[in-house]
Amino acid sequence: MTTHPTPADRDATDALRTFRDRFVLPEGVIYLDGNSLGALPVATAGRVADLVNAEWGLSLIRSWNAHDWIGAPQRVGSKIARLIGAQSGEVVVADSTSVNLYKLIMSALQAQPGRRTVLSEPGNFPTDLYMVESAIASSGGQHRLSLVPRDQLLSAIDDDTALVLLTHVHYKTADVWDMGAVTAAAQERGAMVLWDLSHSAGAIPVDLNGCHADLAVGCGYKFLNGGPGAPAFLYVASRHQSRLQTPLGGWMGHKRPFDFVDGYEAAPGIARFLCGTPPMLSLIGLEVGVDLMLEADREAVATKSRALAALFMAEVSARCTRFGVELVGPPPGAPRGSHVSFRHPEGYAIMQALIARGVIGDFRAPDIMRFGLTPLYLRYADVYEAARVMEDVLAAGAYQAEEFRVRKAVT
Amino acid sequence: MTTHPTPADRDATDALRTFRDRFVLPEGVIYLDGNSLGALPVATAGRVADLVNAEWGLSLIRSWNAHDWIGAPQRVGSKIARLIGAQSGEVVVADSTSVNLYKLIMSALQAQPGRRTVLSEPGNFPTDLYMVESAIASSGGQHRLSLVPRDQLLSAIDDDTALVLLTHVHYKTADVWDMGAVTAAAQERGAMVLWDLSHSAGAIPVDLNGCHADLAVGCGYKFLNGGPGAPAFLYVASRHQSRLQTPLGGWMGHKRPFDFVDGYEAAPGIARFLCGTPPMLSLIGLEVGVDLMLEADREAVATKSRALAALFMAEVSARCTRFGVELVGPPPGAPRGSHVSFRHPEGYAIMQALIARGVIGDFRAPDIMRFGLTPLYLRYADVYEAARVMEDVLAAGAYQAEEFRVRKAVT
Repeated sequence: MTTHPTPADRDATDALRTFRDRFVLPEGVIYLDGNSLGALPVATAGRVADLVNAEWGLSLIRSWNAHDWIGAPQRVGSKIARLIGAQSGEVVVADSTSVNLYKLIMSALQAQPGRRTVLSEPGNFPTDLYMVESAIASSGGQHRLSLVPRDQLLSAIDDDTALVLLTHVHYKTADVWDMGAVTAAAQERGAMVLWDLSHSAGAIPVDLNGCHADLAVGCGYKFLNGGPGAPAFLYVASRHQSRLQTPLGGWMGHKRPFDFVDGYEAAPGIARFLCGTPPMLSLIGLEVGVDLMLEADREAVATKSRALAALFMAEVSARCTRFGVELVGPPPGAPRGSHVSFRHPEGYAIMQALIARGVIGDFRAPDIMRFGLTPLYLRYADVYEAARVMEDVLAAGAYQAEEFRVRKAVT
Repeated sequence: MTTHPTPADRDATDALRTFRDRFVLPEGVIYLDGNSLGALPVATAGRVADLVNAEWGLSLIRSWNAHDWIGAPQRVGSKIARLIGAQSGEVVVADSTSVNLYKLIMSALQAQPGRRTVLSEPGNFPTDLYMVESAIASSGGQHRLSLVPRDQLLSAIDDDTALVLLTHVHYKTADVWDMGAVTAAAQERGAMVLWDLSHSAGAIPVDLNGCHADLAVGCGYKFLNGGPGAPAFLYVASRHQSRLQTPLGGWMGHKRPFDFVDGYEAAPGIARFLCGTPPMLSLIGLEVGVDLMLEADREAVATKSRALAALFMAEVSARCTRFGVELVGPPPGAPRGSHVSFRHPEGYAIMQALIARGVIGDFRAPDIMRFGLTPLYLRYADVYEAARVMEDVLAAGAYQAEEFRVRKAVT
């Protein structure tokens, strides 16, 4: 007779098992929030210390040349490009995801004269929608944001659609858009598509070039493990770069920044989407995370992501359904991002009780408990244990304690 | 008979002399470029390491609450406010100087309907002018940028002037605008003024509230010693905050960012000028620099800045005028910023030769050699020695070597 392998068995043969030791992970914690803030790579502290002590402290201003600080946004961008199916020179690291959204939304509206609609879905990550509002207000209110439910979105693309803005992996549900199909449908109607890869890059396979994608942005501090508030990235397909004009034409995107001339002239290529001076400490932190991610086999990451999710969904369903916990998003076996969410009316308090027990996920209003499953540093045994603790917390009613009901600033 | 005190005598009685040991300074270097990248405070490496190892590494996502990452932009902003004559709640740290310029230029244009001119001076710091171009392009080209020479600027302010945008201390010449007089003249005509304090904050006295200033931005990595690419700050007078609308309404500036609602609603107060997630490593580096600056007596800093400039100008004039070196900007005794610039047709090569001798200043096209005089970590003896080395380099013609003529990426 055959038996199912235990979680420990699966960890013992996990192709990615050596990566866990490349991260700092606190004792007594099962960290299921790497989709909000990725864990600290072991190499980061030393690299940041070197940047601070040797490069800043001793080489001072000379490091812009001597340590190629000036080339870092493009250098790290080209590394990220390899993770998302883009070419070197199509990705640059800059600013925040929000600011990069604004750059590319404004660029797209300006490049699509006569088209006045930006299409997205209700419940998209808020800042994506806010930056559309911002772009519309900045450019004089001639455009409109249309929010169309997911199942009707493709048919809503028409000749008035300037831009379709979607988050590839939904931040709450882990639903995944078919990037190739949406891109093709939009381009057939003459619209552009801007993909937010914040919950995709480093988490699941992304093939921007293979999908003939136009534009994308993404986050550095989630699955790329770049550190809190690490700068974000943006992608512009090479075919679009020369015709797009950033609304934030700062000196770092100038053709000759160190000529210090009065008039703006956009740099060739992706560099024109830079604006101000990059925050080097945070940018170098991101580079360490990206370098580590590049060491991992991307097919193995995708396979383990699916397997961790399948195990977690199965265990939580078996243990917690009777307490009213309900899976949100793709059912087992369907394409998904690398996090799993469950709904419960007491989701906030349950999550606080889990955190008190060392199982760290996060809460997304109004009732979503979200668990990030990061293949590089999570074990099958971690995911199994997290489900067991959730059952405990629910069975004992531990979440009903007053202390777990006080809302914190960041939830 | 009396004798002038020597530079060493002056260092021995310098009220700020203990601050030099609070910075890491390389052996054999006289660092006169703290106006481009401030030196590394001794405390920074430890604080950044703690942020990385303890806060990120061990507390992980919990640090947004537990270590008040979420409050850091306002906390550090309120500290900077004390350096520039503003109230807590009028300053916030965010993004880059360029991005903050865009926010406030766009806000001001929107708040001044019917006024269509932005007034500045030719040769202002390039990104300031570029961001005006950007704002005009974003908002539909209904405005114009008018560049008026410094001595005619006040009389050019008229009923069509929406905004006057000036750098308080000129980045090349160290010329200083009379903030109170310009602000009064502009406000009398109904215009707003946006001050770029990049070369002022931490360098010379600034009294935004005392001047009834409207708006300001500034840089974190120059005289505030925040580290390469440290985030920037912005100031909005409390009387303007509720009526100004940022063009970059991202989720961190939302009234309830963690409600994750589809529609944007601006936070009350200065927080609405936040956009995306702040780069925490770089932001904490800035806080260390600002904390150190707050320890210093601001009158002593101003006094020493003037004295260092007077000594450097006198020595360079006496030693180098015969080689064609010419002072740029305010003459000795006149109000000035905390850097001194000289013009020479071979300025680039001379600066490279100085750097090779350990005297680090920088070059600004087409012919300006610029020397930052930072009272916290420079000695009178340093400034004296720098002038002596410049004389040497010129007398020996050392700058004529081929190696000093090759332009680097960053100059």
